[in-house]
Amino acid sequence: MSLWLTGIGVSRGIAIGRVQKLHGGDLEIPEYSLPPSDIDGEVVRFYGAQRRAKEQLREVRSKIPVGTPGDIAAFIDTHLLMMDDRSITEATVSHIRSQRCNAEAALRRARDALVEVFEQMEDPYLRTRRDDVEHVCTRILRVLMKTDRALAMKSDSISEPTVIVSDDITPADIILLSQQSVVAFVTEYGGPLSHTAILARSLGIPAVVGVHNARRLMREGEQAIIDGELGHALADPESLALAFYRRKQRSQAQARKKLTLLRDEPAESRDGELIHLLANIELPEDAAVAAANGAEGVGLYRTEFLFMNRKDQPSEEEQYDAYARVVSAVNGPITIRTLDLGADKQVDSGRSHGPTPNNPALGLRAIRLCLKEPEMFRTQVRALLRASAHGQMQIMLPMISNLAEFRQAAAIINTSRDELRAQGVPMAGKVPIGAMIEVPAAAIAAPMIARHARFFSIGTNDLIQYTLAIDRVDDEVNYLYDPLHPAVLQLIRMTIQAGEAAGISVAMCGEMAGDPRYTRLLLGLGLTEFSMHPSSVLEVKSVVRESSVGELRGRVGGLLERIMSGETGADPLEELLRPAS
Amino acid sequence: MSLWLTGIGVSRGIAIGRVQKLHGGDLEIPEYSLPPSDIDGEVVRFYGAQRRAKEQLREVRSKIPVGTPGDIAAFIDTHLLMMDDRSITEATVSHIRSQRCNAEAALRRARDALVEVFEQMEDPYLRTRRDDVEHVCTRILRVLMKTDRALAMKSDSISEPTVIVSDDITPADIILLSQQSVVAFVTEYGGPLSHTAILARSLGIPAVVGVHNARRLMREGEQAIIDGELGHALADPESLALAFYRRKQRSQAQARKKLTLLRDEPAESRDGELIHLLANIELPEDAAVAAANGAEGVGLYRTEFLFMNRKDQPSEEEQYDAYARVVSAVNGPITIRTLDLGADKQVDSGRSHGPTPNNPALGLRAIRLCLKEPEMFRTQVRALLRASAHGQMQIMLPMISNLAEFRQAAAIINTSRDELRAQGVPMAGKVPIGAMIEVPAAAIAAPMIARHARFFSIGTNDLIQYTLAIDRVDDEVNYLYDPLHPAVLQLIRMTIQAGEAAGISVAMCGEMAGDPRYTRLLLGLGLTEFSMHPSSVLEVKSVVRESSVGELRGRVGGLLERIMSGETGADPLEELLRPAS
Repeated sequence: MSLWLTGIGVSRGIAIGRVQKLHGGDLEIPEYSLPPSDIDGEVVRFYGAQRRAKEQLREVRSKIPVGTPGDIAAFIDTHLLMMDDRSITEATVSHIRSQRCNAEAALRRARDALVEVFEQMEDPYLRTRRDDVEHVCTRILRVLMKTDRALAMKSDSISEPTVIVSDDITPADIILLSQQSVVAFVTEYGGPLSHTAILARSLGIPAVVGVHNARRLMREGEQAIIDGELGHALADPESLALAFYRRKQRSQAQARKKLTLLRDEPAESRDGELIHLLANIELPEDAAVAAANGAEGVGLYRTEFLFMNRKDQPSEEEQYDAYARVVSAVNGPITIRTLDLGADKQVDSGRSHGPTPNNPALGLRAIRLCLKEPEMFRTQVRALLRASAHGQMQIMLPMISNLAEFRQAAAIINTSRDELRAQGVPMAGKVPIGAMIEVPAAAIAAPMIARHARFFSIGTNDLIQYTLAIDRVDDEVNYLYDPLHPAVLQLIRMTIQAGEAAGISVAMCGEMAGDPRYTRLLLGLGLTEFSMHPSSVLEVKSVVRESSVGELRGRVGGLLERIMSGETGADPLEELLRPAS
Repeated sequence: MSLWLTGIGVSRGIAIGRVQKLHGGDLEIPEYSLPPSDIDGEVVRFYGAQRRAKEQLREVRSKIPVGTPGDIAAFIDTHLLMMDDRSITEATVSHIRSQRCNAEAALRRARDALVEVFEQMEDPYLRTRRDDVEHVCTRILRVLMKTDRALAMKSDSISEPTVIVSDDITPADIILLSQQSVVAFVTEYGGPLSHTAILARSLGIPAVVGVHNARRLMREGEQAIIDGELGHALADPESLALAFYRRKQRSQAQARKKLTLLRDEPAESRDGELIHLLANIELPEDAAVAAANGAEGVGLYRTEFLFMNRKDQPSEEEQYDAYARVVSAVNGPITIRTLDLGADKQVDSGRSHGPTPNNPALGLRAIRLCLKEPEMFRTQVRALLRASAHGQMQIMLPMISNLAEFRQAAAIINTSRDELRAQGVPMAGKVPIGAMIEVPAAAIAAPMIARHARFFSIGTNDLIQYTLAIDRVDDEVNYLYDPLHPAVLQLIRMTIQAGEAAGISVAMCGEMAGDPRYTRLLLGLGLTEFSMHPSSVLEVKSVVRESSVGELRGRVGGLLERIMSGETGADPLEELLRPAS
């Protein structure tokens, strides 16, 4: 009998295949004491397993197909680096010696301590790094427990279209399996920001995460249909369902093929409005992928990568190298966001009493941290200004909540520029400074900030969270996360109108900008600049080219006013989400 | 030489006295092992200390002067109850037995475990209960370590006006000291929501908290001036400063005396606008205090008290008794807020994997929790509806972020009402259901919600926090907490206008409503209903009676528009904060 399961669709597409279950991170880890004479041998055994796990990862890395986005190799590189991290290796060895326990138990202890550190991080993006720790440790654990061959054998044996059903899955396993005949992933845990999700999207493999009890409910070998957009998993489907989804699959394949033809076409609407489509990237290597997908520049380059997985802060030179590389690599404008990290232990000093921050999302992060640590900020700013010589760069300040913060940060940037100029350092003639609008107060006060900022970029992910007072990585309340909440749309419109009135550009770099379901709605709200994951550019471009911007603006503006005044419910918005044709 | 220190002014007034330092919670707690034969004796010693600590508290309670607000006795009662709590007593005894350690070390362990639980709570108000745990344990520890007489002796010896300087101070010590010649408190820790702060306000003793290193910087016996409004402590002042503050002190005393004459006067503005001033209360006993301070009813009765310090949930009968008592006690309208708690361990079940909530303020709390636990909500709603028979009650739903939540909760209330009516249970003919506006989305979407709600009450504390994306109990960012942020004022105005357009009343029950500095501004924004701590009513009434509402509305409306459009900065707002005369 058919069985419908639902989760969070994190990588779109329809897939049909046979269920194969995979056991991942939930290993039963043995724990036992060792006689003193066995301790040295156990340490050797641990290092052997760590070496073997690294070899496996390098093998996986060598199998990444050419032309794959840079972030995939970067994930593996990150994991390779983590395998050598002292907080994993030395901590494990020290546990073996001090607790006189086996390597598995010692590694688990080291892992749990690290996981706890990551769980306390405020940035939802960084918090997903917790998964990386687990994945890396699981890989070593598998070698120690000699279960590492199970997956490899399994992957060899896969020949017909297969739907992998697992508790969770590591990026490396995804790469390994994607080269077999795996057509979809279904996992019990994970969210849209997890690396599993990001990788599946990059590889174009449909994936649904957060399907509770999937391994218990789905049967080995039975047929299953996965809809990675709606987040559905349909096990043992009836023939009618099969026929329906096969047709849907075919028409999606045709649509994808048509999309690639749009690469070099302009993002121009039917009524001649030119829309700017840019990419959000993390690594200099992604610039090429962005261009290959038809992006005309980079609307968001995140700089957190440079500051992660390390104890010290990157020097001005190191930062300059990275920024200069990415600015040179981008063939078009690039917006670089200054550091968007929260307070870590090093920064959070001098407080001898009082509770630790209970709500890091409402705490010391992003521009707040930068203004509190002006030396760190100045170092980044100098590196950015120097890199500006290599292209068309602008600087974006995250988490601005009032005008004073913006002016204070801008003053630091201007002072640095004067100093560099006095030193004869080459820089671009103009490096516009803009504000990320992601705090409700900034959206409401946008007309005030627009008098000082040279551009805005709306960060919808945080804006939605604060406006609705929900943390979307909190399973208990993420059902409230709603980009279509009229209050959210109203704040977006207010920001765009404030930008128009002040004559500055307004972009959007949150996930909403890359979701083609929302393109027409955003065009109707007056948005002309969208920045998104490179893989979404072509689809959004296709929607833009089929839309009449003038007509949408009239319609959406009037509709939103009627909704806000309570004259009508929000239902008519749904109509805008349907494709134009 | 003079020394200026600043902290957070939590209880207004000027005080001048000699510094006396007090050592509070930072006891050096000894830890040692016990031979098995001493274990039973140690348990007896612990229970003896616990008994003695309770006697001390009862003694303090008996010293509370008649006419003191009910919350003061309630603090002591809460501490008395906590002294018998199993999580303190049984946990300590079990530690003594299992760890074979001394009672002090065992109690510390029990305390630390409890403190951790409280620190994880989301509600800033509940989190301050952490202090209660520390205060209760400190009291027992002092008896165990025989340092409990130090304070008593100190308090006996106080004869001239004294400024107590301490790390922190327990409510019981405040009561004890307030009966000596203590004129002000200066503490290194604590915030405006702490019980220390609330008590100092209730007793009318100036207090400044959060004065870093106060004990190190201020000298025993030197003269000090405390300004509990501005949060200043001026040690060893020059004669000119002394003269200045003495005059300020005298004029404040005269003003206070004048205020009491207003008790039975209407809160009517110069131009004849009648403003409603109500009280926020927590206990039925506070109703009398509210009336004695000239409040015409209760604008916020919090129901969390019933659910705290216990493992089970209060039954419908128990809740009915409490609600009926307070509804009967209030001579006027009373707005009761449904449960505003966050997810505790009992509720948060069924999640086997995944991180615990990182941002409880953005998580499952208040109406979200109630809709997830409809049985708990229904029990409260039935008790409320039954209590409505005894007076003029309305029900307020906290943390509404969208229309669907409001309608869902209202549907549950209406169903319960139908059921009760069918059972012939007496109820008021009308029990209006309203929304607390404290999430930015609700303020922006107020016109939509106003079509369904019968009243609004603006909760400024949370509204400000979410709008500015800051947690004000987080020391690192509370400098950003700004009730005057133009975005906050704009949201308040939008909410008031939405209420006016829909013909429903709009009150404000956040702290802003009780701060006389903001009264004129709020009148100018169109607010006609203020709910506040009873002790603020007379002062706000005096400002109202000196104001011309019509003139303020014209002025504030125009000014806010100019600020929002960026035409002018926010500075002209400051003018409104100055007294009218």
